[in-house]
Amino acid sequence: LKSGLKIASVALALLGVNARLLGADPDPLAKRMGPIRGRLVREGLAKGQAFAMLTELCTTVGHRLSGSPGAAKAVAWAERTMKRAGLDRVRLEPVMVPRWVRGETETASYQSGAAKPDTPLSICALGGSVGTSSGGITAEVLEVRSFEELRAVGERAKGKIIFFNRPFDPGLFDPFAAYGGAVGQRGSGAIEAARAGGVAALVRSVTGRLDDVPHTGSMSYAGDVPKVPAAAVSTVGANRLSEALKADPRLRLTLALSCETLPDAPSSNVLGELVGSEMPGEVIVIGGHLDSWDKGQGAHDDGAGCVHAIEALRLLKAIGVRPKRTIRAVMFMNEENGNRGGIAYAAAARPGERAIAAIESDRGGGMPHGFSVGGGPAVLSAVSKWGPIFEPLQLDRFRAGGGGTDVAPLTAKGVPGFEIIVDTQRYFDYHHSDNDVLGEVHPRELELGAIAMALFSYTMAEDGLPAVKRP
Amino acid sequence: LKSGLKIASVALALLGVNARLLGADPDPLAKRMGPIRGRLVREGLAKGQAFAMLTELCTTVGHRLSGSPGAAKAVAWAERTMKRAGLDRVRLEPVMVPRWVRGETETASYQSGAAKPDTPLSICALGGSVGTSSGGITAEVLEVRSFEELRAVGERAKGKIIFFNRPFDPGLFDPFAAYGGAVGQRGSGAIEAARAGGVAALVRSVTGRLDDVPHTGSMSYAGDVPKVPAAAVSTVGANRLSEALKADPRLRLTLALSCETLPDAPSSNVLGELVGSEMPGEVIVIGGHLDSWDKGQGAHDDGAGCVHAIEALRLLKAIGVRPKRTIRAVMFMNEENGNRGGIAYAAAARPGERAIAAIESDRGGGMPHGFSVGGGPAVLSAVSKWGPIFEPLQLDRFRAGGGGTDVAPLTAKGVPGFEIIVDTQRYFDYHHSDNDVLGEVHPRELELGAIAMALFSYTMAEDGLPAVKRP
Repeated sequence: LKSGLKIASVALALLGVNARLLGADPDPLAKRMGPIRGRLVREGLAKGQAFAMLTELCTTVGHRLSGSPGAAKAVAWAERTMKRAGLDRVRLEPVMVPRWVRGETETASYQSGAAKPDTPLSICALGGSVGTSSGGITAEVLEVRSFEELRAVGERAKGKIIFFNRPFDPGLFDPFAAYGGAVGQRGSGAIEAARAGGVAALVRSVTGRLDDVPHTGSMSYAGDVPKVPAAAVSTVGANRLSEALKADPRLRLTLALSCETLPDAPSSNVLGELVGSEMPGEVIVIGGHLDSWDKGQGAHDDGAGCVHAIEALRLLKAIGVRPKRTIRAVMFMNEENGNRGGIAYAAAARPGERAIAAIESDRGGGMPHGFSVGGGPAVLSAVSKWGPIFEPLQLDRFRAGGGGTDVAPLTAKGVPGFEIIVDTQRYFDYHHSDNDVLGEVHPRELELGAIAMALFSYTMAEDGLPAVKRP
Repeated sequence: LKSGLKIASVALALLGVNARLLGADPDPLAKRMGPIRGRLVREGLAKGQAFAMLTELCTTVGHRLSGSPGAAKAVAWAERTMKRAGLDRVRLEPVMVPRWVRGETETASYQSGAAKPDTPLSICALGGSVGTSSGGITAEVLEVRSFEELRAVGERAKGKIIFFNRPFDPGLFDPFAAYGGAVGQRGSGAIEAARAGGVAALVRSVTGRLDDVPHTGSMSYAGDVPKVPAAAVSTVGANRLSEALKADPRLRLTLALSCETLPDAPSSNVLGELVGSEMPGEVIVIGGHLDSWDKGQGAHDDGAGCVHAIEALRLLKAIGVRPKRTIRAVMFMNEENGNRGGIAYAAAARPGERAIAAIESDRGGGMPHGFSVGGGPAVLSAVSKWGPIFEPLQLDRFRAGGGGTDVAPLTAKGVPGFEIIVDTQRYFDYHHSDNDVLGEVHPRELELGAIAMALFSYTMAEDGLPAVKRP
């Protein structure tokens, strides 16, 4: 029986099940972390600063595409906010970033029917797109749902505006799976349109919400085909255009964009930390990206992630604990269109220190549920043992996975990557659009994200992680 | 080793851990339920009707306090919606309900300072309160935070309006715990005020949100003290009044309410079901309450719960399964101020049938996470074995607990009670106020609640529950 219980207990520990439920003693770490969790919750929920920080970012800075005046103001906001929060060694690390500007003009309309009235569509340029000539492009429209369908069309695509109208699949439980299934037409639509002989790409906004707000995002060009302009159309607009095409397949659409790419511009990552008391050279990076698309206020994407990290460290300081290992908040610049900040951070020489983990928050300010865990099974097993620490806040969903884009250059060097798991059922309603504003973030949900980041990074700073083989 | 593994496996099963993670075979029920879960998700998220149903209830009926014309329209809505959803044996069960009406007048203002300008406060009568005389009550105000504080005041309370200003504790993770800590002054404030010699009770709205919207709710009188009028003041108003009292403790407040209690009125519970294919006499009740307070649209409280139940049965029908046991949706009337519907449902003779479970949804339309489980450890253990069925939808939080108010008369008779666990961080922002409107409900979160109710009730209908001793 004794060996049976031991096996059961090991199995349960591997799965993060609270051993107390079986009558075993709680482990010393869980015992010690209980009161700290309690103080984090009280400090955060009763006196938290996360929503106030985000309010300042959204209302005094607003959106902040890399290289823009907004991004420069965001860097100043992050530095000021970290200093105000009492972080150690607040500093900027310079990085050159791409500079794409939307310009004044982005319109689309189609002319169909006998009287050929001009019907406007709600569109916006995709990030990185070339502009049109000043009068715009006027052409017939070819609607497709996939690249396969486009390739099968052959000659009929030539000279046309290719309208990629594959919807976000609402039938999937995980909105990121739906996003993954639809975002390819945004990222590669211009390449595929040009390859087929098309003159522009018009892409259904990658969202499950039906409204008249277009959602921007990154797109690419390829060296072997011409660069054609690319824009997103709102989901309501996409449906309207699709209906109009059924009635009049020869209708003509005019697309005008004045966006352009300027030379790279100087910008910065912003860093601040709590220096570890025992192993200051072992660093846990926590962070999100400071840049946003040039729509809305970048409240969820990724103002929330920035605030999660700064507030996490402020909370730890406020309750008077100092981690054994260093926890560093990094506000990465340029996640949205180049990831130069993430690349620069990972490439920098940092004598005397070793990154032991990189924890990202880039899924918005929704209710937190746990963490996506990279670094392999040994790390997942170690983290799962912390389950009892996180269960009272319903933060104990630890899943194999890893970090987001900002920390990918670090994880490529062998640093285990992590990402906070938050509820994302609403996320793509807002993402990359004018819908992404402060009013869509709930103060308690945001603060609970910061509490989760504080508890997770602090637990890691105390307990460490198993060594991971570098690739 | 073999016996060790067996013990581990039993321990894990008891805790609802997915045995597949250990390499064991999934149990046959989980295997069979997997595809059913998949079809429920796809039908619900891609073609669900929950939000459309709630839209009709909120916009064509609106709020619906027991005995009001709105409540009568809600009964008709429920009957029509159940029939449209294809439920079996849709019917009304009559019940007499209390009839309290708010009337035209509910105002409060205070006069202080040299010029004695009249400063209005945003208030509303508490449900069940008596009105004031037509000119209102004008008196000095005594602010207290607790009944203990009021009792300690002694003679000073006489002739005053007692202002109960204990705030909702924002530092608690569970908003229902904060609600529980503050709602007593609403429920018993009028009794305690009268006992202390006060002339009225003015209660800080029971919400953590700071805004100018008062939140109503039920209150009681006692036989041995006079009935004094009772109203809720918005949190912003409560703070303003508290500040004003610091500056001028003798300020005078005028409260005017025209609410009154009329004779009991006829109303109905509304029932509809999927008749069980093998054990039709074993009935699983699922439901919420059809009545609401006479503020906002009763969208979260408890339109969401009504729609969860009806849509759950529509989903099961749409994917073409019929449960072995009967699953009955019950729209209970009068949860908010009397629970006459819940009492009547439990009291009715139902020859040839036996209720085996009662599953309530009365915590709003937020993201579902699992179920609160009554009936004791054997039931919790049986339900926890279903964990692998619910884990892919993150619905596997099964906690000891039980059902809500509507099903309490059933659970008092020994029927195991259950309640869906949803995220409630936003719930009390809306609860019992003009903030509780359709726009605060997210279509996917609402539909996922219906999917959760369908999956849980269907699994129970297939697998049954262990016998529970009647009290």
